[in-house]
Amino acid sequence: MSSLKQLLGIDLPIIQAPMAGVQGSALTVAVSNAGGLGSLPAAMLDLTALAGELRTITAQINRPYNVNFFCHTTAAPDAMHEARWREVLAPYYTEFGIDPATISAGGSRMPFTDDVADVLEAFRPPVLSFHFGLPAASLLARVKSWGSKILSSATTVEEALWLEARGVDAVIAQGLEAGGHRALFLTSDLTTQVGTMALLPQLVRALRIPVIASGGIADAQGVRAALTLGAAGVQAGTAYMLCPEATTSPLHRAALKSDRRRHTALTNLITGRPARGIFNRLMRELGPLNDAPPAFPMATAALAPLKAAAEKIGRDDFSTLWSGQNTSGCREIPAAELTRLLAVHT
Amino acid sequence: MSSLKQLLGIDLPIIQAPMAGVQGSALTVAVSNAGGLGSLPAAMLDLTALAGELRTITAQINRPYNVNFFCHTTAAPDAMHEARWREVLAPYYTEFGIDPATISAGGSRMPFTDDVADVLEAFRPPVLSFHFGLPAASLLARVKSWGSKILSSATTVEEALWLEARGVDAVIAQGLEAGGHRALFLTSDLTTQVGTMALLPQLVRALRIPVIASGGIADAQGVRAALTLGAAGVQAGTAYMLCPEATTSPLHRAALKSDRRRHTALTNLITGRPARGIFNRLMRELGPLNDAPPAFPMATAALAPLKAAAEKIGRDDFSTLWSGQNTSGCREIPAAELTRLLAVHT
Repeated sequence: MSSLKQLLGIDLPIIQAPMAGVQGSALTVAVSNAGGLGSLPAAMLDLTALAGELRTITAQINRPYNVNFFCHTTAAPDAMHEARWREVLAPYYTEFGIDPATISAGGSRMPFTDDVADVLEAFRPPVLSFHFGLPAASLLARVKSWGSKILSSATTVEEALWLEARGVDAVIAQGLEAGGHRALFLTSDLTTQVGTMALLPQLVRALRIPVIASGGIADAQGVRAALTLGAAGVQAGTAYMLCPEATTSPLHRAALKSDRRRHTALTNLITGRPARGIFNRLMRELGPLNDAPPAFPMATAALAPLKAAAEKIGRDDFSTLWSGQNTSGCREIPAAELTRLLAVHT
Repeated sequence: MSSLKQLLGIDLPIIQAPMAGVQGSALTVAVSNAGGLGSLPAAMLDLTALAGELRTITAQINRPYNVNFFCHTTAAPDAMHEARWREVLAPYYTEFGIDPATISAGGSRMPFTDDVADVLEAFRPPVLSFHFGLPAASLLARVKSWGSKILSSATTVEEALWLEARGVDAVIAQGLEAGGHRALFLTSDLTTQVGTMALLPQLVRALRIPVIASGGIADAQGVRAALTLGAAGVQAGTAYMLCPEATTSPLHRAALKSDRRRHTALTNLITGRPARGIFNRLMRELGPLNDAPPAFPMATAALAPLKAAAEKIGRDDFSTLWSGQNTSGCREIPAAELTRLLAVHT
């Protein structure tokens, strides 16, 4: 535990999980200033926006923070697959009066590239975390040369060993309970994915570097339990989604406060990669895991106008409602207070 | 914690999970005599065998023990579904030189009935645990009238509230990591199933009665973590499978000691209901979840000769290899010693 605090220069062993789409720098700043490690999700920011957020963060805090990136390879557009996806969505286009001819193709998740590293270099973020593995070796060496500490998520023992061998400073054990995108990158077989209670002790046993627990940890008891299982710290996301600093949409907040929050599923309908969110109409009608969506992140474009049209009339039928399986720790309190509450037994 | 020990009259807050097929009374006796709650799985015992095991147990211990039953309704034989299942298995029958005409239909898991209660009445077991819900109200009232304490497993908040409303004495929170049959009974939607780290705190919060944690708990740290999350005790199964008192087959033991143990899946291929076991050839080739198997427990008959033929040549292609997602606590030590080790931090 103290090793992680030392490694990252933080006072509390709490990492706020980066959550693209429901937060910007305000949450990062609040958590880091409270003594945890605030995270900025960069996957949905263009280079200008990224630089702007980093300026905001560095102007407001003088403590470590984390910037998170996705490490996917953007798939080449696949016209046939895109057409099939739109065919599956056709009844919805009719229902909402949308002309699919007006929808451009494309994705909305940026991978980590040299251009991104160019922006980062001026800031040299204290911590960088990656999802879906790691960037290419040369790019990783470049960011490490600045002194940035490197984290990445593992969903299996194999992935954890792979990350350790490539020089990450700590591994995040992403249990199956976690909300948002599954980090899996050495396999696409979802039967390999295991719960936190099973994954965490196996990674602690297999690795020499610190292991950070994530998935289903929502309160101080959960943090204490994870530390008991050998975690050096905890990454919590869902618990922060109702904080005033989060940009969680009103529909998303409503779902997180209703009994619907009890039922999440892994779905590939939103982006093309499996991610956990609150069960909604799209998942119910197409099945949460479906062959139709094109490769990540190309599924997003065809869905965007449906999402917008439904949200305009107060419905989350097509919305991104990321959530972990344990929403019992969601609190409408400032993120600094939540961070201190999470760490109260550490 | 003390409430569960008081409720069940045990010294250690450890329940050995009933595991039909890999244990008989020897494991029950060893665990109960060590101060935990040993369990006898009765789903695969006929009435005579059940009475025999109960005589063995009561002759060897003077402490509480648990007898476990399945609460399914045996489905009527469905010739069309059975034929489809055999058609899917046909290539395997050819490969192993089996004439499917010689295979009788039927299942091999006994539900809880008045006949079973007649056998139990002479013994009045201190604890009865049920899987897949509860027996009919009159039958439940009958066994409760003897003073037997009643446990049953819940996989969702809804199931836990349902069980509490029907008068169980404690609920077992069966996290998704758990080996063997999923207890789910109010739904068949597997997306409702959640990890222990998420399920346990939600049940603790929702119920007034004690909650017992299960799924992925394999060692003393796991037990301590579960108690930290509010569990009154722990039910552990997988950890006991290599104990000398378990009747785990040599092939099953070999799989549990190999790296294959890292990959389990929920499969309905073995019995028709989803259960977690080590990934094997049948799961790989048919997909672990498949529409072909007839209703529980009717899938077993058609598979039995394949299982036997493959095992005869040292292969577990069709074997039942139940296991939880955390095998790191499996130890080849006497069950009494394992029980004490599990409880060392309680």
